[in-house]
Amino acid sequence: MSTRIDLNSDVGESFGAYKIGLDEEVVPLISSANVACGFHAGDPSVMRRTIALAAAGKVAVGAHPGLPDLMGFGRRTMDVSLQEIKDYVTYQIGALSAVAAAQKLVLQHVKPHGALYNMAVKRPEIWEAVAQAMAAVDPNLILFALAGLDQTGLKYMGDRHGIRVAFEFFGDRAYNSDGSLVSRKLPGAVIHDKDQVAEKIIQLIKTGTVTCIDGSEIALKADTICVHGDNPSALDLIRNIRRALNFAGIEIAPVGDFLK
Amino acid sequence: MSTRIDLNSDVGESFGAYKIGLDEEVVPLISSANVACGFHAGDPSVMRRTIALAAAGKVAVGAHPGLPDLMGFGRRTMDVSLQEIKDYVTYQIGALSAVAAAQKLVLQHVKPHGALYNMAVKRPEIWEAVAQAMAAVDPNLILFALAGLDQTGLKYMGDRHGIRVAFEFFGDRAYNSDGSLVSRKLPGAVIHDKDQVAEKIIQLIKTGTVTCIDGSEIALKADTICVHGDNPSALDLIRNIRRALNFAGIEIAPVGDFLK
Amino acid sequence: MSTRIDLNSDVGESFGAYKIGLDEEVVPLISSANVACGFHAGDPSVMRRTIALAAAGKVAVGAHPGLPDLMGFGRRTMDVSLQEIKDYVTYQIGALSAVAAAQKLVLQHVKPHGALYNMAVKRPEIWEAVAQAMAAVDPNLILFALAGLDQTGLKYMGDRHGIRVAFEFFGDRAYNSDGSLVSRKLPGAVIHDKDQVAEKIIQLIKTGTVTCIDGSEIALKADTICVHGDNPSALDLIRNIRRALNFAGIEIAPVGDFLK
Amino acid sequence: MSTRIDLNSDVGESFGAYKIGLDEEVVPLISSANVACGFHAGDPSVMRRTIALAAAGKVAVGAHPGLPDLMGFGRRTMDVSLQEIKDYVTYQIGALSAVAAAQKLVLQHVKPHGALYNMAVKRPEIWEAVAQAMAAVDPNLILFALAGLDQTGLKYMGDRHGIRVAFEFFGDRAYNSDGSLVSRKLPGAVIHDKDQVAEKIIQLIKTGTVTCIDGSEIALKADTICVHGDNPSALDLIRNIRRALNFAGIEIAPVGDFLK
Repeated sequence: MSTRIDLNSDVGESFGAYKIGLDEEVVPLISSANVACGFHAGDPSVMRRTIALAAAGKVAVGAHPGLPDLMGFGRRTMDVSLQEIKDYVTYQIGALSAVAAAQKLVLQHVKPHGALYNMAVKRPEIWEAVAQAMAAVDPNLILFALAGLDQTGLKYMGDRHGIRVAFEFFGDRAYNSDGSLVSRKLPGAVIHDKDQVAEKIIQLIKTGTVTCIDGSEIALKADTICVHGDNPSALDLIRNIRRALNFAGIEIAPVGDFLK
Repeated sequence: MSTRIDLNSDVGESFGAYKIGLDEEVVPLISSANVACGFHAGDPSVMRRTIALAAAGKVAVGAHPGLPDLMGFGRRTMDVSLQEIKDYVTYQIGALSAVAAAQKLVLQHVKPHGALYNMAVKRPEIWEAVAQAMAAVDPNLILFALAGLDQTGLKYMGDRHGIRVAFEFFGDRAYNSDGSLVSRKLPGAVIHDKDQVAEKIIQLIKTGTVTCIDGSEIALKADTICVHGDNPSALDLIRNIRRALNFAGIEIAPVGDFLK
Repeated sequence: MSTRIDLNSDVGESFGAYKIGLDEEVVPLISSANVACGFHAGDPSVMRRTIALAAAGKVAVGAHPGLPDLMGFGRRTMDVSLQEIKDYVTYQIGALSAVAAAQKLVLQHVKPHGALYNMAVKRPEIWEAVAQAMAAVDPNLILFALAGLDQTGLKYMGDRHGIRVAFEFFGDRAYNSDGSLVSRKLPGAVIHDKDQVAEKIIQLIKTGTVTCIDGSEIALKADTICVHGDNPSALDLIRNIRRALNFAGIEIAPVGDFLK
Repeated sequence: MSTRIDLNSDVGESFGAYKIGLDEEVVPLISSANVACGFHAGDPSVMRRTIALAAAGKVAVGAHPGLPDLMGFGRRTMDVSLQEIKDYVTYQIGALSAVAAAQKLVLQHVKPHGALYNMAVKRPEIWEAVAQAMAAVDPNLILFALAGLDQTGLKYMGDRHGIRVAFEFFGDRAYNSDGSLVSRKLPGAVIHDKDQVAEKIIQLIKTGTVTCIDGSEIALKADTICVHGDNPSALDLIRNIRRALNFAGIEIAPVGDFLK
């Protein structure tokens, strides 16, 4: 039973004159910021400002690399090769590393974005391609992967490449009894009730279990909780999670502080 | 009178299915490779292959950051702010650094590309913006700037930011008596005779002088010579320079090996 | 003294997941919509939705071509050639024409965006390049150009290429006594008081004059007024202009309905 | 048995400083040019020059729309929606139409590029999305689709939307007995012998049959033959096809001249 948990959120997804996300509000509420790196979102100036927000908020930063599809916000599966994935991830980690270094920050983690993340969930060799890219650039980087029933394999994969893997839980998403997320196309996939979200998270941390959409209970362990900062009610959701964690005596901290 | 000189060339400017430059042939002929970083040219996979060529050829590598104008190959002046320049240069240095690190290489230098270089020649505050970006990411990086009559100022600027500046000479370009390059729009701007090019370079290194287009002679010092690898005759030009340097007892070496 | 005036606004500037502008609200308040065409902003799906809004609101549509600089929102001067400008404008007019044709609309006008517009104000040969592109694709298209003291020249230029030119007035901008806009960098350049804006517009239409920032009065004629739809107070400004025009007995109509 | 056949080739795939394809050489050898439209390849200036080549060579022109993936040259499958496909195709047809109109040409056809074409071969609803986009812009446009055993369905689909469909044969590709192309990953997929290629084409036109990779013979009808212009030997292949067609008394003509 862990007494510390990480809260991560995707930030820095604005681009040029285009603004997405309430970064100023969400960054102070999380412990790990996943910063877009210019492929699916973000640009060099947005990245600088996002790193500055994280530095000011003493929040750990990580790369949030995506597919080269700005028009589709990196949400569309693309038939890219494993080598291309490695190349794109390497490039984006490097770009953000320099932006962070210019403000005396070092990247903590890497969390693939959107379609790239979903592709990896379906094809574990994509997690491995990402891990290889990370290991070659900086083996201290932590890979954020989806918590599920087969985490052991991913842990071993990380070990093999010399990097740590942190598992991520979605408090506002319903789970299938096989540990996968219920598709957004199905009813009940997204949980809007903020107390229910907080309860799911506390249950996960306290008991290592998730109650699935079919009522069954499965064992699941997670190191970090994904939260969103798109709109005011999303911020309320985070604030409620923070309060619940506080009452439950669970400390919010960057995953790099406690992950073995 | 130096006995060592660097030969640099722009490489890695292919993009996706598009190939530009005879990188395989030119890399073994130079000592410093300026690698495009994905803005004006280059993509993450091209960058990986270019770094591999440099690693195989034991050639020093540097970032060749450009303006975000792939359609114009970074050759069109854009009214970007100094802050944007810093952001773009930081991003590109970082991206290439990671690609290089994945192959155990460390960047030696930064040479702005095309319009960005020409803008800096006209507005020294742009050299400074580039220098600031470099210093914040890695103060060991060397800035490549155009050799001219007022190098002292640039040297001081580099000192102020804690980075070294290497001065670059164009052996195949005619010079004005104020130390600037004769505009490509004027006749005689580009020297095509390969012996004449080699002679100008030897004269520069041996005597620290350039004979200008008007026949006058000016004092000029340079640490690195820019050469091109676009076509077979450009490669011949480089081979001829190498032979001439060899006969003259001048060693070709990456500027990082001898620049103070 | 005209009794009809056009109200135009830049719309369709969203891109992918990124939303800019209150298009749903602003389109019903104007008579001519300047639709972004995918270079500085807009994408094919945004363009379709924007044309649908205009069709529903019975608003005339025009192309709002920009420089190929999504990161800079087409606001940064670029050193593009006149031929490139013609090519970019032709391409963008065509793209929007097809999107409009698929919804049974025909383009009324072309208004260059941002830096391209400002470049044309400074260099009339750019207006001519745009006019040439328009004439070659569809000579019924009307060019929107900045109203000023030297409109006769632009009218002649349009005549020479067989296209009409409509002149545009900025009700919320202060004017210099030479008919140019006061730079946004100077105090007083933008007029925020909505009654003052409406009064300037009524004065222009009723008397053909503008009171300049230095108190002098100059003669100016305009066919269309540029308004903005970025935020709720901008919408209020338009509503106030509409009320004032209504009270003054001036009809709001697409410029194509009345321009000779 | 037809006595006329169309030869089509993908052209205009250069981009900015990047050159691909021997367009100057290939255009005079074909009857229909598929011109890239700026998404997977091509830019507005390249498009203008390509249309000029086609105009000079009296070659019919068509749009060659691709996925928005310049880095992947439009060769990577992307999970775009049918609506997005319609939007992208509409946009690209329009852009090229204007470039062509500026040189007094009207588009004859539309041939999807690369991954978009291959996706359509697998999912006929994509052919329909393309057809809908074409019909809404200009019902005189002819859709180029892969010849196969089930052409009747595609013909009906075209009829339903009021557009014609021309079927395309690949003379240099081996066919499976189900009428599909042998995957490029398999040995024998591409036929390099130029006489064999010419013979396959003559057999197709004269007898309406193809001899498949397994030796079986299937009935197949085609209106246009796809040829390539990437390199000198590809040009030789076309010249050989032209000679063979000439000897066989088969006229080469744009498909729009003879397709019912």
